[in-house]
Amino acid sequence: MRGVAALNAPLIGTPDSRAMLETPALVLDAAAFEANTAQLAALSGAHGMGLRPHAKTHKCATIAKRQLALGANGIACAKPGELLALFEAGIRPLMLTAPIASARKIARLADAAARGAELTVVVDRVDLVEAFASAARAAGARIDVLIDCDTGLGRTGVVTADEAVALARAVAAEDSLRYVGVQAYAGLVQHVHAHVDRRAANDAANARLRAILDGLEAAGLAASIVSGGGTGSHLLDFEAGLLTEVQAGSYIFMDEGYQPVDFHGTETAVFATALFVDVTVVAHSAAGEAITDAGSKSLAIDGPPPRVFRDGVEIGRIEWAGDEFGRVKTAAGHEAPAPGTRLACTVPHCDPTANLHDFIHIVRDGRLVEIWAIEGRGLSD
Amino acid sequence: MRGVAALNAPLIGTPDSRAMLETPALVLDAAAFEANTAQLAALSGAHGMGLRPHAKTHKCATIAKRQLALGANGIACAKPGELLALFEAGIRPLMLTAPIASARKIARLADAAARGAELTVVVDRVDLVEAFASAARAAGARIDVLIDCDTGLGRTGVVTADEAVALARAVAAEDSLRYVGVQAYAGLVQHVHAHVDRRAANDAANARLRAILDGLEAAGLAASIVSGGGTGSHLLDFEAGLLTEVQAGSYIFMDEGYQPVDFHGTETAVFATALFVDVTVVAHSAAGEAITDAGSKSLAIDGPPPRVFRDGVEIGRIEWAGDEFGRVKTAAGHEAPAPGTRLACTVPHCDPTANLHDFIHIVRDGRLVEIWAIEGRGLSD
Repeated sequence: MRGVAALNAPLIGTPDSRAMLETPALVLDAAAFEANTAQLAALSGAHGMGLRPHAKTHKCATIAKRQLALGANGIACAKPGELLALFEAGIRPLMLTAPIASARKIARLADAAARGAELTVVVDRVDLVEAFASAARAAGARIDVLIDCDTGLGRTGVVTADEAVALARAVAAEDSLRYVGVQAYAGLVQHVHAHVDRRAANDAANARLRAILDGLEAAGLAASIVSGGGTGSHLLDFEAGLLTEVQAGSYIFMDEGYQPVDFHGTETAVFATALFVDVTVVAHSAAGEAITDAGSKSLAIDGPPPRVFRDGVEIGRIEWAGDEFGRVKTAAGHEAPAPGTRLACTVPHCDPTANLHDFIHIVRDGRLVEIWAIEGRGLSD
Repeated sequence: MRGVAALNAPLIGTPDSRAMLETPALVLDAAAFEANTAQLAALSGAHGMGLRPHAKTHKCATIAKRQLALGANGIACAKPGELLALFEAGIRPLMLTAPIASARKIARLADAAARGAELTVVVDRVDLVEAFASAARAAGARIDVLIDCDTGLGRTGVVTADEAVALARAVAAEDSLRYVGVQAYAGLVQHVHAHVDRRAANDAANARLRAILDGLEAAGLAASIVSGGGTGSHLLDFEAGLLTEVQAGSYIFMDEGYQPVDFHGTETAVFATALFVDVTVVAHSAAGEAITDAGSKSLAIDGPPPRVFRDGVEIGRIEWAGDEFGRVKTAAGHEAPAPGTRLACTVPHCDPTANLHDFIHIVRDGRLVEIWAIEGRGLSD
């Protein structure tokens, strides 16, 4: 172990040990995490929809194992490095959800496929089909392939049914590949706050996806797997029924970016905040504010400011005060906590926050119970 | 090695190997880095001013060694974890530039002092003086102590001369501590764009610092060390002559945040951009824009967007397109580079960007020549 995890490991099992953690420490509330993972697994099952949790959120093999144990179709990864770290930790099936452009990375993925990764990849250009086919052939592997579709995000993926059909035909023509369907990630939909607006955005994305699916079916290339969606759209995705599986990530942790999102459309599915960065007050400013030991090197700041809790009671918000410091803005009726006080902060954005930490501290009833490695931390390649 | 560094290590020494790097890769232009480090070392020497480079920028023992070899007074660190990682890598003298509030961390620092860290710390409250004193006594060490002063940043430090005198007396009364002076980091000054405004901001901070220094002198506690300043204020600090040493960090790398800063006050001291994140184009968007493989998990986004270079020619800027993706906005006359193309991006903010990477690739004339570990990466404790 390394950093605060090495300092905190001796506290595992000690009552009230959360309050003794050296900080900044990434903390997972075990009960909230378990409720979140069980809730979406049960809800997707009840709708006959698969779940392919996205590991870009956590990059942690232990979390991936929990998700698989709850019936997930497999684990999605954003990058080859992240995927290979989870593969080496025993996770499979694995899906790479972004196109790549490196012969070396393609060869490494094909090698993992040959060693049992049960690999699915996405493609959005014909040279990438050829590169995966020849790498799989060389490795003696077969790789499942989805056609990556752009339904409005404007990032990767093909836009028209004709493009999708041409790529699917190219995949189907390769013995070392297997055409299994499409991916369509409606990334712009996830954080739309009002349910009515989020529904409209998802409907627009689905109309584009439906045109592609119809075109593939007409060409005799009906998609078996239609993978997409996320935490923000999952209820709409269940209702629309176009996807065969949801690629949700944030639902396990939650963050301030998701707090304004109104999930109450067709049914209630609110996830609990399970992820925190615990911090220590290190000073009082000239204005009497508490200054903490965690800034943008410990909390990704691309989201609303963290709520801050002292002994489980919300006392205010944290303002960014540099790369190594936060500034507690206490709500009325709360005094600035003294130097040495431990505080728990929610996170502005969960995915890049988890990526800043090597280990995650698991707490239950105020007690540190385990520390899990974040095997894919920093692996953005 | 780990991640892209492990993939890229076999390329060390190969001509034109920068263009073959697996990405996202943190890259240091050796010539620009050497020019920057030599320039500030020479300039501070010419002004009879010391230089205590801040390692919060790089967290890298190899870089710290280069800075010490150029005559630095020692290496500044923001956090105990960062400091101890550099200590274990052989770096000394070491200075901790922020107050802390953990008995365990204080004991670890005292232990490092006993083992030869040549440690200086800062204090801004009397209980911290007592904690360092008793830890140093227990470890059989002596620790040098600066009084941390707030000259306008509103974060840590005492504000008045009376507070500084009281703390200096408390330090001087402890056999295991040695009072050596004050620290005053004018953090709000560094990024003020116009020279005239930056000068006014620095003058205001210096007026507060002067009052504290006068008070200490009147009490028979004149400061031997007056440590502060930074990359943005260094010329003003040389001119004012209040500091004995400048704690600059960013000057070695530079970033987009410093591009609008007009350094041309009393003399020219423009540092070259030496830090890059090299990326690969992985797709074209529906609008024909090149999409790269580096988002906010590879580039800290708290600064102006990166400039992007292809074969050394600037072709536009990168917009953030998620945690794993960037979007190239090409300038007029430049086509979107094809998938597979390597591009070099400047960084919005250097310190938190370096903290996202385990290794830094050193390039000279387009050739990868070395890979250095970033020993303190992620150590924000």
